[in-house]
Amino acid sequence: MLPDPWLAFGVDTLIQAMPVSMRTSAAGIEFAPDGEVVAGPEFRTLEAAWIEGVAAMARAGARVIVDEVFLGGAASQQRWKKDLDALQVLWVGVRCETEVAAGREIARGDRVTGMAVSQAGVVHRGVVYDLQVDTTHTEALQCARAIAAHVG
Amino acid sequence: MLPDPWLAFGVDTLIQAMPVSMRTSAAGIEFAPDGEVVAGPEFRTLEAAWIEGVAAMARAGARVIVDEVFLGGAASQQRWKKDLDALQVLWVGVRCETEVAAGREIARGDRVTGMAVSQAGVVHRGVVYDLQVDTTHTEALQCARAIAAHVG
Amino acid sequence: MLPDPWLAFGVDTLIQAMPVSMRTSAAGIEFAPDGEVVAGPEFRTLEAAWIEGVAAMARAGARVIVDEVFLGGAASQQRWKKDLDALQVLWVGVRCETEVAAGREIARGDRVTGMAVSQAGVVHRGVVYDLQVDTTHTEALQCARAIAAHVG
Amino acid sequence: MLPDPWLAFGVDTLIQAMPVSMRTSAAGIEFAPDGEVVAGPEFRTLEAAWIEGVAAMARAGARVIVDEVFLGGAASQQRWKKDLDALQVLWVGVRCETEVAAGREIARGDRVTGMAVSQAGVVHRGVVYDLQVDTTHTEALQCARAIAAHVG
Repeated sequence: MLPDPWLAFGVDTLIQAMPVSMRTSAAGIEFAPDGEVVAGPEFRTLEAAWIEGVAAMARAGARVIVDEVFLGGAASQQRWKKDLDALQVLWVGVRCETEVAAGREIARGDRVTGMAVSQAGVVHRGVVYDLQVDTTHTEALQCARAIAAHVG
Repeated sequence: MLPDPWLAFGVDTLIQAMPVSMRTSAAGIEFAPDGEVVAGPEFRTLEAAWIEGVAAMARAGARVIVDEVFLGGAASQQRWKKDLDALQVLWVGVRCETEVAAGREIARGDRVTGMAVSQAGVVHRGVVYDLQVDTTHTEALQCARAIAAHVG
Repeated sequence: MLPDPWLAFGVDTLIQAMPVSMRTSAAGIEFAPDGEVVAGPEFRTLEAAWIEGVAAMARAGARVIVDEVFLGGAASQQRWKKDLDALQVLWVGVRCETEVAAGREIARGDRVTGMAVSQAGVVHRGVVYDLQVDTTHTEALQCARAIAAHVG
Repeated sequence: MLPDPWLAFGVDTLIQAMPVSMRTSAAGIEFAPDGEVVAGPEFRTLEAAWIEGVAAMARAGARVIVDEVFLGGAASQQRWKKDLDALQVLWVGVRCETEVAAGREIARGDRVTGMAVSQAGVVHRGVVYDLQVDTTHTEALQCARAIAAHVG
């Protein structure tokens, strides 16, 4: 929908770039059976470099889409904000009613049950957006159109 | 095998980050039926930003592994070299006899036949390495050990 | 949601079981650029054996879920019906307004555009269901609950 | 390499067809941290129906390739043998030196370490083959050629 080609990254891109051992150690990132996700110091170190690198790609002229989950709420947004600094950023909050999100998590069949409920509140706490979309009753394509309309 | 955790990226990471439309346009990247791969101007623009970003991650302190295919030989290496500039880099050439590579391509079953033969010579032409491994008769793990021994 | 464990198969299971060459020959299965899908004689031969085999699994006592796309409408249903014969079957029609389905196809980003519109009418033509669900405004989980309520 | 199209199935096809809950219960299938795999009674029930179904596909005229791991050695082969009964079967043993298999397991990076060593002996114990290939020093394509030469 966007006029120029872009690079899209998510937290999954970062996790897949890390050694498997990072997913099985407390220093890395842990996915608890109840759906909680805890990032340790080694994960944070690589993540900091990752954020700097993605910001550098944007500064080099690439249009960049980052699909992030702010497990630390406002503090997580801050980590990105300081590196994105002089860049033009559109902060978009993608929301969904917790009950519906939990239902989609079950329907996907490949997720740790409880992640949606566990993250529903946390990820938006204190986060400041330029625009918010809600997928509870709005199709993904409609949400995408609303966002694209804000991107010059 | 390496003592510190790292981030590993490949040309596939870049291609997956691009919009699907980039894979179906001459301005993007084309996979010809005979296995040839041709990168167009829009691909090159995003790739240049990507290289700057990955270099920035290394400068920010992350150990980074880049698994690249130098379709342009020496010129492709040069594109990385100028951004990796002051960084400490170990250039490793991973080789395989063309006939064996072509056989593995068939055995994988998910590749465009002809890519291995088409790329075998090109990707090493004029490229300068610190170290070379050959997977024709050496197991991947043995090659990895040889490489790890050169990484302080 | 179902009390007993089951085996779930789809047309994708069948396609992945076939040699790659079946996807690149007119005798196999062709995915046209406009989203049309055409099955040739070799595909039909293997499909017939596949259907007999899945029916045999059910007769052997397994609960089986088949997620099918009836490209041939009533004729496709008939192909399954004759083998499922003496078995207890719940035929469920999963519907979605064409425009919404087309939007989801775009939003997925990994589909040939046009498939949803091309198949919307065809796949239900003349097909007889015991139960129908509509995902246009109903969440997948709610649809699943409606179906599970009909499975003893 | 084979003249006629075939259907290829593996134990992974079966596991993916089962509900996720089967992979997280002792009645289903368990992957121990040391690489051991234990199949419970509910897994065995669905597996028995699966084997009957695959045999039915072959009886219906399809050429079928089954890529199995005989965790129970001769007893596992027996489970298939009784259903494949009157069918023409070529039993092929695919071997690899334990040390090399363990190395490939590590090099893949997506396996529970220890599975190769844990299974190396067990899966061939008491199993009778018509033909054996060894991938330790022979390329997959060469092994495939040797097998194809035995398939009329």
